[in-house]
Amino acid sequence: MARSRLTPERESELYEAVLDLLREVGYDGLTMDAVATRTHSSKATLYRQWGSKPELVARALRHNKPVRLDEIDTGSLRGDFHEMVSRADVDQLERDSALMRGLAHAIHDNPDLLQALRELLIEPEMTGLDEILRRAVARGEVAQDNPALKLVPHMMTGALIVRPLVDGRPVDQAFLTTYVDAVVLRALGV
Amino acid sequence: MARSRLTPERESELYEAVLDLLREVGYDGLTMDAVATRTHSSKATLYRQWGSKPELVARALRHNKPVRLDEIDTGSLRGDFHEMVSRADVDQLERDSALMRGLAHAIHDNPDLLQALRELLIEPEMTGLDEILRRAVARGEVAQDNPALKLVPHMMTGALIVRPLVDGRPVDQAFLTTYVDAVVLRALGV
Repeated sequence: MARSRLTPERESELYEAVLDLLREVGYDGLTMDAVATRTHSSKATLYRQWGSKPELVARALRHNKPVRLDEIDTGSLRGDFHEMVSRADVDQLERDSALMRGLAHAIHDNPDLLQALRELLIEPEMTGLDEILRRAVARGEVAQDNPALKLVPHMMTGALIVRPLVDGRPVDQAFLTTYVDAVVLRALGV
Repeated sequence: MARSRLTPERESELYEAVLDLLREVGYDGLTMDAVATRTHSSKATLYRQWGSKPELVARALRHNKPVRLDEIDTGSLRGDFHEMVSRADVDQLERDSALMRGLAHAIHDNPDLLQALRELLIEPEMTGLDEILRRAVARGEVAQDNPALKLVPHMMTGALIVRPLVDGRPVDQAFLTTYVDAVVLRALGV
């Protein structure tokens, strides 16, 4: 795919429009026609650049990710997790939390969306998280065979998605900090 | 509300029909008309018995709950959590996981649904869980001021909702057992 034909600014504009549409009408309601109209592109261009709706959605979400995990390296696992939380834009987290709940619903009927999200969004994100955890193991902070190492994504994503349901309140930094200290770091034995 | 006018069998039938419809068309697609048609009731009866769609949905989910937490008391916290997992009907868990993802999405646009779910489903369920945790504190298994005590619902519900997204696989008993041991009990210091 000749993604290089778009300038970074134009690509960014397109992704923003896709996320706006996702928030407005949900995954099932999102059509390539609507994206084309909203962004003044042709549908042919969209398909040439992204191949399919699931890939376009996954790349838009990846573009939008609130924290660059690969930039974080404070020297301790607690420091890395707290840095992650403090870099997070809370308003964006709440918007993303709503987006993710919508997508978690949509994957049930759209296995191609699940596959695109896993390949283009979740696995690259996991690589950043794995690197943070790998360094903690190398420093001796976490035992190499700690079974919670594989469950960090479940713990973190769960907290983001579930908080409004359980507490009736949006995700905020105080909640995430408490959760990281009381659950994630404790499970990892830090 | 004169809920007593319905026999338990009839009430059960109605709740099953509501859950079937929820799985088929989602919360936004579910209408009182469709429930009335499916269950051969009048809409007037439905409103008299349940007052509103959010309340009907919350009560149907409560009726369907896969494990009675208030029946579990094995004498240890690890035993209670493992009993919870082993009593869970895995097929129903997967069905409920899909239902919960759909509802987690719907609450974003329906604050009255969130309120009904919290009052009629989540809070009573929390009471059962609180009781299990309260006994563990009383036995000295968990420190009274452990901050993870308040976060058990987030950990558990998160695992149920997130697993398909992160691992591309449905929830099963082996995963839940690992999660309980590696995350929940570790965070609680057991």
